[in-house]
Amino acid sequence: MEFKELLEKRSAESWEKYIPTLSIDCVIFSFHETALQVLTVKMKDQNFWGLPGGYVKKDENVDDAAIRILMDRTGTENIYLQQFYTFGNLKRSESAFQEYDDALWHKQRFISIGYYALAEHSKVKLVVDEYSTVVEWKSIEDLPLFMMDHRTIFDKALVTLREQLNNHPIGYNLLPEKFTMPELQKLYEAILGKKLNRGNFYRKILRYDILTKLDESRKGGAHKAPDLYSFDLEKYNSALKEGLKGSW
Amino acid sequence: MEFKELLEKRSAESWEKYIPTLSIDCVIFSFHETALQVLTVKMKDQNFWGLPGGYVKKDENVDDAAIRILMDRTGTENIYLQQFYTFGNLKRSESAFQEYDDALWHKQRFISIGYYALAEHSKVKLVVDEYSTVVEWKSIEDLPLFMMDHRTIFDKALVTLREQLNNHPIGYNLLPEKFTMPELQKLYEAILGKKLNRGNFYRKILRYDILTKLDESRKGGAHKAPDLYSFDLEKYNSALKEGLKGSW
Repeated sequence: MEFKELLEKRSAESWEKYIPTLSIDCVIFSFHETALQVLTVKMKDQNFWGLPGGYVKKDENVDDAAIRILMDRTGTENIYLQQFYTFGNLKRSESAFQEYDDALWHKQRFISIGYYALAEHSKVKLVVDEYSTVVEWKSIEDLPLFMMDHRTIFDKALVTLREQLNNHPIGYNLLPEKFTMPELQKLYEAILGKKLNRGNFYRKILRYDILTKLDESRKGGAHKAPDLYSFDLEKYNSALKEGLKGSW
Repeated sequence: MEFKELLEKRSAESWEKYIPTLSIDCVIFSFHETALQVLTVKMKDQNFWGLPGGYVKKDENVDDAAIRILMDRTGTENIYLQQFYTFGNLKRSESAFQEYDDALWHKQRFISIGYYALAEHSKVKLVVDEYSTVVEWKSIEDLPLFMMDHRTIFDKALVTLREQLNNHPIGYNLLPEKFTMPELQKLYEAILGKKLNRGNFYRKILRYDILTKLDESRKGGAHKAPDLYSFDLEKYNSALKEGLKGSW
């Protein structure tokens, strides 16, 4: 089916099925090969990349819509998901779908509710939907040009992660169950957008008493095998409730 | 005009003027007589209290709608305003307007974008609108029963204030230009929902180096007149950018 034909077909269905004016955009983070990554999609007939998103059904809670959209793209529901901001500028999407009829669902003004998700990289199974040609992880150091205001949405999500680092289980949800201290430090550096002193980082993170040092090390590298750690979830959650003390 | 008649008149206008499905609710805080207070309204024909709110015009940015709603209720635009969460549960307002026709604007499903505002108490001039009989400040220690999910919206706003205390100019916007240290401590205690040790609080807040001690004291009490302080806005903003270090 031609893209235009597809849009027109889906437009009629969407007017029936979804709440007007309201969309959801998801900033899905993962951590892989020492880089913070974000899930991006390339739409058919568009040169720009975008964030995965969707709409809210008339009989659906907004949070449930976000979970459904995430499931459709990543093949899993079991992902930490958090609403972070709603984007309501009048002209946020006026550049899109200009060549289509004004009655097209996709061309309407949408106020978009942003959710960020923290996915364990290895557990995600990417799904290309009918609107898109590619769906892939991109390092946040090397992002493509985004369509509409999706770059603004991404930036706001990252700032939110940064502000919530001491109150939300961000490390726990992005890292695999077992990780090395250099991996944890890389993750913190990626979120904070700055280099951290190794010694200070180790001292500080150990002082929180939220990690368990495992009786294993990571085999395979040329260097001395680094120790493996995991989060002590009970201590981690209780420390987050109070807020981890201090900034980085 | 009867309330029913008024609603029906406004309903027709609202369908014309506003984006469907979308509302705004404002949690307006102030600090007065050593208590954190929140602005509440009592609607005509309702036993419950609510938060001030409104709708978004079809040709209006969502942020501008929030500023307009705030202006209509408080007589001033010059208030710190911050979006904090969007409330999208299917049944969040199903208890309201049950006795009215299903086509009534006010009876529709609304997804509500929550904004919190920080007002300097003395600068606010309260305005009763045509839907309400009373608008007044209530201490957060002594809140009335709220309609719909407004209690949830209030609770989320307060938790947000708490989480943002180290990153946003909350003290600056709630206190008058000149304040005493006991007033500042009371404000922190009200937001955090707990008593703080006086000595620790003084040491910590002074260590941030964000206050200017003025060459004046507060006259009038039975006790020794307490010193007055004000925020050094430049230092305060630069410290907030990094995040004030430590939790309370």
